[in-house]
Amino acid sequence: MTWQVDVLTLFPEMFPGFLGYSLAGRALEDQRWSLKTHALREFGLGRHKAVDDTPFGGGAGMVIRADILDTALEATKPEDDRPIIYLSPKGRLLQQADVVRYASGQGAYFICGRYEGVDERIFQKHTIEEVSIGDYVLSGGEPAALILMDACVRLLPGVMGSDQSGVEESFSSGLLEYPHYTKPAQWDDYAVPEILLSGNHGAIASWRKEQAENATRQRRPDLWESYQGNHK
Amino acid sequence: MTWQVDVLTLFPEMFPGFLGYSLAGRALEDQRWSLKTHALREFGLGRHKAVDDTPFGGGAGMVIRADILDTALEATKPEDDRPIIYLSPKGRLLQQADVVRYASGQGAYFICGRYEGVDERIFQKHTIEEVSIGDYVLSGGEPAALILMDACVRLLPGVMGSDQSGVEESFSSGLLEYPHYTKPAQWDDYAVPEILLSGNHGAIASWRKEQAENATRQRRPDLWESYQGNHK
Repeated sequence: MTWQVDVLTLFPEMFPGFLGYSLAGRALEDQRWSLKTHALREFGLGRHKAVDDTPFGGGAGMVIRADILDTALEATKPEDDRPIIYLSPKGRLLQQADVVRYASGQGAYFICGRYEGVDERIFQKHTIEEVSIGDYVLSGGEPAALILMDACVRLLPGVMGSDQSGVEESFSSGLLEYPHYTKPAQWDDYAVPEILLSGNHGAIASWRKEQAENATRQRRPDLWESYQGNHK
Repeated sequence: MTWQVDVLTLFPEMFPGFLGYSLAGRALEDQRWSLKTHALREFGLGRHKAVDDTPFGGGAGMVIRADILDTALEATKPEDDRPIIYLSPKGRLLQQADVVRYASGQGAYFICGRYEGVDERIFQKHTIEEVSIGDYVLSGGEPAALILMDACVRLLPGVMGSDQSGVEESFSSGLLEYPHYTKPAQWDDYAVPEILLSGNHGAIASWRKEQAENATRQRRPDLWESYQGNHK
């Protein structure tokens, strides 16, 4: 079945962007997923097709009008059970577990904001998941929507092919990934850790787990804390 | 001065991607920032220009060789003080404060990994910042590099123009942003909060702060905790 993406945006030309290349691009050609953009501008008002206005109460920037967004949503929103996702720094912080859940569904409908965001009342009328990809501010929702798509598409059946990556990877264990090494065994002044050349699979697995635990403890005390909580 | 970006990647065609449009695209044309890609493939070995090999110790996926990455880095790395950034889920979690720091510098040099990542020894020889844009797994470093560029470029002088957004926005205060409303004041069954129509700027500022605090407390207890720690 095709994993379906719809995007409501002021910049349809930004899609598929980098998703048109490499694995995601091939998967798009092979119809493992589909991508349809809807131009919010077409629902704008007047000669200039305005979609935004100044904020009530004052302040910088413009706010996308709820009535226009509502008309666009009513005209283009999915008739199936796909979630409607609004990308926003105020949203729930995206985790790999969410990606896995979205990827195992039918797809998603993305609303991309620009400017100061959208009139808050849209969330009273529609069931919309607010999702943030991180604690930083982007130019709009489009880059964030592309990230969420990228994370999902690579998990779709057949996309990573015979490559079994995705099984043993960051976050699936609750730990950061262990370090990787490849040929040459001796490079410049640096040698591969000897244990990796030992052929002792049990010892290698233990070493890798220890490395992953050390990296997580040192770099991400927050992840380490919840990992410990889950492995008591 | 132009904010300079260099990218070492297996997929130069992914750039500038969505950054070729809207504010970032205009800023690129106006040379407020520059973007140069370096094809890692050109430094590959043999007839197939191979850049990767199987991991020592076994496991799925391929690892980018340290010697090849090193040759590419030596040939293309910046001669100025720009940071060399490797995008990786194992990196330090990107925050808006990092974005502000990068944007106020001369630019950045990005290394984009693919497959299982790069041979760890590259970090012993070179000073490389490992940065993660969030706790999820992407197809490669390219999408993450584009996100970091997007976040930085919008902060460059002149890019957001007369729009004063960026001053009062998410994270700069340590809080999520307060909700926005615009015309029409009455839409469907939903009215704008009356205080925003009062013209009382002091009361509006207080209300907005309270809304921002409530949203942060409810949605992001982690941010709320550090906000409280900083405002004792």
